[in-house]
Amino acid sequence: MVKIFTVGVIGAGRIGKIHIENLVRKIPNINLKIVADIKFNDELKQWAGEIGIPKLTSDASEIINDPKIDIIVICSSTDTHAKFIQDSAKANKHIFCEKPIDTDIKRIKETLAVVREEGVKLMLGYNRRFDRNFMRCHEVIVSGQIGEPQIVKITSRDPAPPAIDYIKGSGGIFFDMTIHDWDMARFQVGSDVEEVYATGGVLIDPEIGKAGDIDTAVAVLKFKNGAMGIIDNTRQAVYGYDQRVEVFGSKGCVIADNEATNTVRTYTAECTNIDKIPYFFMERYLDSYSNELEYFFECLRENKEPRPNGEDGMQNVLVALTAQKALEENRPVKISELSNT
Amino acid sequence: MVKIFTVGVIGAGRIGKIHIENLVRKIPNINLKIVADIKFNDELKQWAGEIGIPKLTSDASEIINDPKIDIIVICSSTDTHAKFIQDSAKANKHIFCEKPIDTDIKRIKETLAVVREEGVKLMLGYNRRFDRNFMRCHEVIVSGQIGEPQIVKITSRDPAPPAIDYIKGSGGIFFDMTIHDWDMARFQVGSDVEEVYATGGVLIDPEIGKAGDIDTAVAVLKFKNGAMGIIDNTRQAVYGYDQRVEVFGSKGCVIADNEATNTVRTYTAECTNIDKIPYFFMERYLDSYSNELEYFFECLRENKEPRPNGEDGMQNVLVALTAQKALEENRPVKISELSNT
Amino acid sequence: MVKIFTVGVIGAGRIGKIHIENLVRKIPNINLKIVADIKFNDELKQWAGEIGIPKLTSDASEIINDPKIDIIVICSSTDTHAKFIQDSAKANKHIFCEKPIDTDIKRIKETLAVVREEGVKLMLGYNRRFDRNFMRCHEVIVSGQIGEPQIVKITSRDPAPPAIDYIKGSGGIFFDMTIHDWDMARFQVGSDVEEVYATGGVLIDPEIGKAGDIDTAVAVLKFKNGAMGIIDNTRQAVYGYDQRVEVFGSKGCVIADNEATNTVRTYTAECTNIDKIPYFFMERYLDSYSNELEYFFECLRENKEPRPNGEDGMQNVLVALTAQKALEENRPVKISELSNT
Amino acid sequence: MVKIFTVGVIGAGRIGKIHIENLVRKIPNINLKIVADIKFNDELKQWAGEIGIPKLTSDASEIINDPKIDIIVICSSTDTHAKFIQDSAKANKHIFCEKPIDTDIKRIKETLAVVREEGVKLMLGYNRRFDRNFMRCHEVIVSGQIGEPQIVKITSRDPAPPAIDYIKGSGGIFFDMTIHDWDMARFQVGSDVEEVYATGGVLIDPEIGKAGDIDTAVAVLKFKNGAMGIIDNTRQAVYGYDQRVEVFGSKGCVIADNEATNTVRTYTAECTNIDKIPYFFMERYLDSYSNELEYFFECLRENKEPRPNGEDGMQNVLVALTAQKALEENRPVKISELSNT
Repeated sequence: MVKIFTVGVIGAGRIGKIHIENLVRKIPNINLKIVADIKFNDELKQWAGEIGIPKLTSDASEIINDPKIDIIVICSSTDTHAKFIQDSAKANKHIFCEKPIDTDIKRIKETLAVVREEGVKLMLGYNRRFDRNFMRCHEVIVSGQIGEPQIVKITSRDPAPPAIDYIKGSGGIFFDMTIHDWDMARFQVGSDVEEVYATGGVLIDPEIGKAGDIDTAVAVLKFKNGAMGIIDNTRQAVYGYDQRVEVFGSKGCVIADNEATNTVRTYTAECTNIDKIPYFFMERYLDSYSNELEYFFECLRENKEPRPNGEDGMQNVLVALTAQKALEENRPVKISELSNT
Repeated sequence: MVKIFTVGVIGAGRIGKIHIENLVRKIPNINLKIVADIKFNDELKQWAGEIGIPKLTSDASEIINDPKIDIIVICSSTDTHAKFIQDSAKANKHIFCEKPIDTDIKRIKETLAVVREEGVKLMLGYNRRFDRNFMRCHEVIVSGQIGEPQIVKITSRDPAPPAIDYIKGSGGIFFDMTIHDWDMARFQVGSDVEEVYATGGVLIDPEIGKAGDIDTAVAVLKFKNGAMGIIDNTRQAVYGYDQRVEVFGSKGCVIADNEATNTVRTYTAECTNIDKIPYFFMERYLDSYSNELEYFFECLRENKEPRPNGEDGMQNVLVALTAQKALEENRPVKISELSNT
Repeated sequence: MVKIFTVGVIGAGRIGKIHIENLVRKIPNINLKIVADIKFNDELKQWAGEIGIPKLTSDASEIINDPKIDIIVICSSTDTHAKFIQDSAKANKHIFCEKPIDTDIKRIKETLAVVREEGVKLMLGYNRRFDRNFMRCHEVIVSGQIGEPQIVKITSRDPAPPAIDYIKGSGGIFFDMTIHDWDMARFQVGSDVEEVYATGGVLIDPEIGKAGDIDTAVAVLKFKNGAMGIIDNTRQAVYGYDQRVEVFGSKGCVIADNEATNTVRTYTAECTNIDKIPYFFMERYLDSYSNELEYFFECLRENKEPRPNGEDGMQNVLVALTAQKALEENRPVKISELSNT
Repeated sequence: MVKIFTVGVIGAGRIGKIHIENLVRKIPNINLKIVADIKFNDELKQWAGEIGIPKLTSDASEIINDPKIDIIVICSSTDTHAKFIQDSAKANKHIFCEKPIDTDIKRIKETLAVVREEGVKLMLGYNRRFDRNFMRCHEVIVSGQIGEPQIVKITSRDPAPPAIDYIKGSGGIFFDMTIHDWDMARFQVGSDVEEVYATGGVLIDPEIGKAGDIDTAVAVLKFKNGAMGIIDNTRQAVYGYDQRVEVFGSKGCVIADNEATNTVRTYTAECTNIDKIPYFFMERYLDSYSNELEYFFECLRENKEPRPNGEDGMQNVLVALTAQKALEENRPVKISELSNT
């Protein structure tokens, strides 16, 4: 008989709601028992009723302390991740946590030590690994068709910048946007990063510069296996959410292009048109969120280590910190300069 | 306040299950109260339990006679459609019915008369109209971008033939496969068919020929507005489910190509590859089933006449009958030769 | 040592000039000795001087009677083809002749008999066979990759109708436009046509109708090997010269799409654009003219029978005549109805 | 009346032969009078005869001193460019010279001073600017459709490494391969480079490393106008000559993809194939060579300053030298560190 997992979710903000809807509607053989959110307001209660969530609480410890709960999905704010991961691990729950674990390397290490000690599984929500195109790209590489990866190129551009207040609290572009790309580069190349050079500028909105951030960034990675990586980011691609990956190898090259909104081409006397690419992550990556949860539960059922795991999460943060230093000092910086602290 | 429709479903076979899952998981503001299926076996009961269907019955009249039911979704076998439509209409329910209404023109006319008399809404499940690509194609045409449609070309090829027993009961390729294409052609051109020429042969499997059918077909349509149509069908495209539409007009041309499985291209020393097209209708048209239901309920809410309606259904059957005659007599046949009977 | 062929050209109109420039600039190891054209005016003389043609004459017999001439390229008006082919053959020259040989089947048969008797080689200028895309399509088919051809689909649309006077003398759309498509269909399928159904209308310009022709046509072919063909033509595709071929077979499908003007895609906030397809045959098929001449001389050097040969030419005319009858009588017509006369 | 230019060519090696054939066959209204090549052997004499070159010499000064010569095309070895440019300029000839002028900045400046003083026109053979795709890309940018360029990305990969001996004399990858990309980046962005970071490795062939060069390179550019550039090079892309350009701007993005060998797609049960991209520069860039000469003569006729000119050539060499320094010192280096010497 199939084991039915009992699940609790901490955090029902934007991303929490996506996970909760997927748990309710798309993930078979689980029982979503309870959701915690500090807001706990009427709007949330109504939404929970419509979705069919059995119980709502404002107190996360109710979930952590519930002996019936097998699995905790953490979607609360970043500053609470490390604490909730540790608490959940100590309560012997398996954990799916939104990225990042933390922005402080020491705190991450300490958190991962607890996870390791308690022997629970931890997976992080780098959902883009579960986009059908990037998964397929990865499969092609793992199959050996393109030989040894030598150059990975990632194009990752948002359609419009967020509010300046959001920028201020975002930790900077390398933590907020590029964090996905560090992970993608490592995922596709199959190696960790050794050195980072990063540069950029304020080409979109001077207010972003005043907030101490940049809005356009270029980074070059050197991987431990000798491969190189190139990433470009911008806060504003007016034509939509431009998300592409290319991996060049000794025996070939694999390119994952943008998703099409549809396959229609229109030919007129003036021009030939195709429809615009998907506008933003909800249009592009919606399926990846249910894919990652499916994979997570599959790992639990088959007792496999899920990836991206805590170590992946730490490596991504290390690269982000290194990129920040590279930008500030305008020089290539080795990961070891930061990881050995 | 949003009106909550109470819905009953008659028939829980393959297509019925798709509609039921969509009603439960994707259509907001409805209440699926009851499902009828003559099989009513343990397997069905278990499935119903997992999906969360409140009540299961083997008796369709329980649904038709339930005064709380607003809407009936008919997914039973084709020979029961006309009866259930008439019964539902007389019970003052709105109806979503799988195609076709019937294969007999008289019986269709009689059924549509009842629907008209009772003043209920009837929509038919020609789901391909709700494929994102063909919808977009239609939008482009309606917008006037390509001017007056002059030539419509439909490529519609199955990946593999069904069992011979299925073929024998299918009514022939023009009823079983091309029926969707007759509808698509009329949908895109925006006009009814006036004359049909059809030809074909047995190129895939001689057993299909022995069963009295063909497995490869080509049809030419003339529309009332002067446009022409070309359709080609085959029971076996070994590379997958080939589903394309092209409409050429006085000011341009619009082409809806196959869906891609993903956007990945792989370049090696030997060749450049893209992944295969979707295998069959479940891979290609899954979203179209929820799209059509969403649209149906939207029409009910906004008191709009849904399309394809009963008249569309009758026209499609008329074209199929005419094509059959054209094939048998190897000559172009006017729709009026059959519609006036 | 390489044999240097001595060549004469009869006819220096539009197509003649293309062949002459190719002979001078692109075909190695030949000597273009003389060009005949009945116009023989100053404009022609100046052009000949610029290109570097050694001798110009108004009298074709000067070429036919020159014992030094090995090969004659005939680009004069259609009504002179049969005579010049026969005269050239009797003078023991190999012949490259523009299509068609004639529009009268008897006269074609008589001409081919002379060619056969004299043992010279005759190739016809169905240049589209030498378009890189359609050549490649043919190669794929011949290689067996798509198995037995079952359905061929040809899209062949001009950008704008010619002058009405041209239409009047064109022999009708099936001789003037579709003649290329009859040849392409036979070339790709590798079989001759057995039956034709053709229909069409006047959707572009009523003047074309008044001139006794149609401007939009659809034809269905049945081949001797059981395959079927679909062709659609229009005199006016406002978006450019739409030239595509698709062949579906028992093991796959091959599609030769339009040539791109360039590979540039432009993404803006409003739309995604690619550049228009080539405007007309000079933009699309220019290379095919030098390709066909190269192939012709290669056949002569290696003593191979060039294709398309006289028999191909006759078959194409037969299909055109049959299509015309099918259109007039609105019924499928067998080739044998005309070929046996 | 059209002015007929009298042209002499110095150097008839691989690239010289391409230019000479274009001058003879494709460029109207010029008179190629004489070609100089130090080899002056039988093979060359035979080739010259076949092409129809009126006169061959081993002595370049015969061309430079000929008062009838208007224009000199220099295709000799790089070390002779500066001398021949200066001599030609002093003899009052306009000059088309293969890239680069020299590898020494001082010698370039000195040469350009002579050109300026003598008031002759100098164009350099950066032929890729005249590829139809990159020209169109440039047009789109200049038209303002994508707004201000912010990021330029160039993919530039050779199909196979040259002989080690060639590598040894090549001046390194940044002079031999990337030199085209520095020019392309400047051409598309419309601004000069301010800072370069470059890195790379030996991933293809250790012999290249032993020869003191790298075979895989990544460079990041900062332009004076604030834009950024990314270039990646490899000596071996086993799938062919990968040549792509992308420019992202404030109002959109323009992508020039690889040329297709043909437009054929083949669908089989196993996979979907397109043909490989062109193998190398002769397949990809052949037209660009005649395009650049056409443009050059057009500039002379219309008395326009041709581009890329001497200043472009110097800037490209400066970027190459700066990249070399950046690679050696593993840090971003400002152009001014080298240009001010």
